[in-house]
Amino acid sequence: MPTPGPMPTPTPGALRTVDEHLAGCLAAVDVLAPVDVALADALDLLLAEPVRSALDLPRFDNSAMDGYAVRLADVAGAAPGTPVALPVRGDVAAGAAAVPPLAAGTAVRIMTGAPLPSGTEAVVPVEWTDARTDTVTITRAPDPGQFLRHAGEDVRDGEEVLAAGIRLAPRHLALLAAVGRATVSVHPRPRVVVISSGSELTPAGEPLPPGHIHDSNGPGLVAAARDLGSPARHAGIVADDADAVRAALADAAAHADLVVTSGGVSAGAYDTVKAVLRDLGGVTFTKVAMQPGMPQGFGTLAAPDGRAVPVFTLPGNPVSSLVSFEVFVRPVLRRLAGEATLHRPAVPAVAGASWSSPAGRRQFVRATLAPGPDGGPPVAMPVGGQGSHLVADLAAADCLVVVPDAVTAVAAGSPVTCLPLERGRR
Amino acid sequence: MPTPGPMPTPTPGALRTVDEHLAGCLAAVDVLAPVDVALADALDLLLAEPVRSALDLPRFDNSAMDGYAVRLADVAGAAPGTPVALPVRGDVAAGAAAVPPLAAGTAVRIMTGAPLPSGTEAVVPVEWTDARTDTVTITRAPDPGQFLRHAGEDVRDGEEVLAAGIRLAPRHLALLAAVGRATVSVHPRPRVVVISSGSELTPAGEPLPPGHIHDSNGPGLVAAARDLGSPARHAGIVADDADAVRAALADAAAHADLVVTSGGVSAGAYDTVKAVLRDLGGVTFTKVAMQPGMPQGFGTLAAPDGRAVPVFTLPGNPVSSLVSFEVFVRPVLRRLAGEATLHRPAVPAVAGASWSSPAGRRQFVRATLAPGPDGGPPVAMPVGGQGSHLVADLAAADCLVVVPDAVTAVAAGSPVTCLPLERGRR
Repeated sequence: MPTPGPMPTPTPGALRTVDEHLAGCLAAVDVLAPVDVALADALDLLLAEPVRSALDLPRFDNSAMDGYAVRLADVAGAAPGTPVALPVRGDVAAGAAAVPPLAAGTAVRIMTGAPLPSGTEAVVPVEWTDARTDTVTITRAPDPGQFLRHAGEDVRDGEEVLAAGIRLAPRHLALLAAVGRATVSVHPRPRVVVISSGSELTPAGEPLPPGHIHDSNGPGLVAAARDLGSPARHAGIVADDADAVRAALADAAAHADLVVTSGGVSAGAYDTVKAVLRDLGGVTFTKVAMQPGMPQGFGTLAAPDGRAVPVFTLPGNPVSSLVSFEVFVRPVLRRLAGEATLHRPAVPAVAGASWSSPAGRRQFVRATLAPGPDGGPPVAMPVGGQGSHLVADLAAADCLVVVPDAVTAVAAGSPVTCLPLERGRR
Repeated sequence: MPTPGPMPTPTPGALRTVDEHLAGCLAAVDVLAPVDVALADALDLLLAEPVRSALDLPRFDNSAMDGYAVRLADVAGAAPGTPVALPVRGDVAAGAAAVPPLAAGTAVRIMTGAPLPSGTEAVVPVEWTDARTDTVTITRAPDPGQFLRHAGEDVRDGEEVLAAGIRLAPRHLALLAAVGRATVSVHPRPRVVVISSGSELTPAGEPLPPGHIHDSNGPGLVAAARDLGSPARHAGIVADDADAVRAALADAAAHADLVVTSGGVSAGAYDTVKAVLRDLGGVTFTKVAMQPGMPQGFGTLAAPDGRAVPVFTLPGNPVSSLVSFEVFVRPVLRRLAGEATLHRPAVPAVAGASWSSPAGRRQFVRATLAPGPDGGPPVAMPVGGQGSHLVADLAAADCLVVVPDAVTAVAAGSPVTCLPLERGRR
């Protein structure tokens, strides 16, 4: 434990509003530069290039069925009562490189997807034949061109097959592979490194020394970033030691597109994250008019490669930490990923109980949403206590009720706005 | 290329319905046995155990603020005009193991989350003081118990904090960490191995030999499984060679909870997957009354550890392959993962055009959904051609229109049922 310095003098002053703080955070970031990734890593990412095919699809004329390539004149009138027998002069499998031409008065056996012999006018499916390989007897005449697939009928060489900006679904990845693309340019999801700060923290699964608690913000914040599709990593717990905090921040900045710390940023004498970042510069510490989550910090860290890496310093209370992630970090991560929609959709509801809200602060109330009576709007019922240390009550909630800054009392039955805490990726 | 055998004699017979085939597939599988995973791997999985806390939360009485622990009598009447000065006799940081008792007539400096000195009756926030460390001057009196957090007020030792069956969100993982759990029992998502079968296939990114096409089913099916949260791997392309197919299937079964092959299962002479699995036994090949996707195979492979691993043999045409995944593989993967909802939600729409559908077959028409006029139901407009080789048209679709087996004509403006092809995980 380091020797504590004096407690910082409290600075009353005006609080920043949630909207002011968020606007400042968003203004500091832009979509990450596109990267080429393998198709296997591109699912669900936003395409950063228009993709043109460099080949026809199908690439060559081929058979739509397992059967026999024929000329129309040779099978005209084939029917159960008047079968036509043709000598089979060759066999074309899918993938065949050398394809024999189709001589008049003969058939060539052919498989689905195999290149057509020159001269083919239709394919007779094996189901319309006796399936023999020496001489085939055909009992039904195909229409002209029947069961033929023509080069380029799906995609033309040079055609744009996918527009920039689409979200890559499995069917898009199948198309990219079909046109020969092994890699594709996408907007990457920001790499996130999470640092848990505090000498009182012990990882879950290890015995708790006296006075210690388990670190819950590390696992929670990493999961919140992963829920948005970000590759996120927990750098672990860093004690209240300036050298350790400085080293952890430097390592995080080197490997991240965004760094999130929790703890060490309020008014305490041991708030080392704040002290170190004040020394380094680049981060502004702010009191935001919200409950929970008042002490906020945002800015940039200098990475060794010269990048200015955005950093959020979130409060250490677990509820404050996850609510701050929702309100500030989530929109910034989505902007970095190139997403058009930054915020969770807001849902109108009615309050299921009455409660008070601090004047001049935006309140985020943990609540559960239940269907409303008679098909009316859903009912938002606050969950247990609202202390920012009550992680079980946070876990029991499935939405946040957003109470506007000027409102000091919410009456049961009055309209409220909710942010359902559903999966974050969409 | 192996020497082709005779073409199998076609067996007309009755087709199985989609519902019959799906019911057979679902009846053959059950939810995978729960596994213990690290919290970092548990996001979005279904909890397989009720979780009880083995400790109180908070674990010990602690301070809700950075400030000074006091006795009420010592600060009664403190106000800006009548400040109270108390000697500061100690300093408690969060994580402190040894906490001095609070003597009457003194204050102890204390940080948020730090254990309370015995005798503490309230905490005075630093904002109500001059923040000094020798003698502190206090200008506001706290209420009894103010800014104290009490052991067990969030969670009691032994209390159930999460019920079995919930889907683990970030806030649940934070709670699990807070109660000390480093691992948790969950229903795992099935491991999927995908095999692309066909001597005509070349991976995307490699030059195409004559007669070859790029494998699009491998990347598409792997992505479709990952879209459901499954760890999925592409075992690569296997040529039409019985030994190679046998080896690939054996290796896949050893490492998968479900194997998916594409290609090699229709009526062709080179359909090696079908030939090998007919030899091995355990897989039934079926003609299903659907368009696209008629030739289907499902059964089990014997893994070296004795498990019977479900295997789907999907048709090789890319549209048939992905539609078959949607219709048959997706519900089976969700049942293996323990999900209650197996199917995509169906959306009512109206047909944006007229088209025909084969008698006695369920048709899955690739289409786009657009908002309906005047707030009416959305309009489903078929996309381009419906040939099962048209992968660009598949990619352009965002839903499948499901035309019932008995319907042979869909009229523009008539009601239809759609399956939107949105992200699969929920």
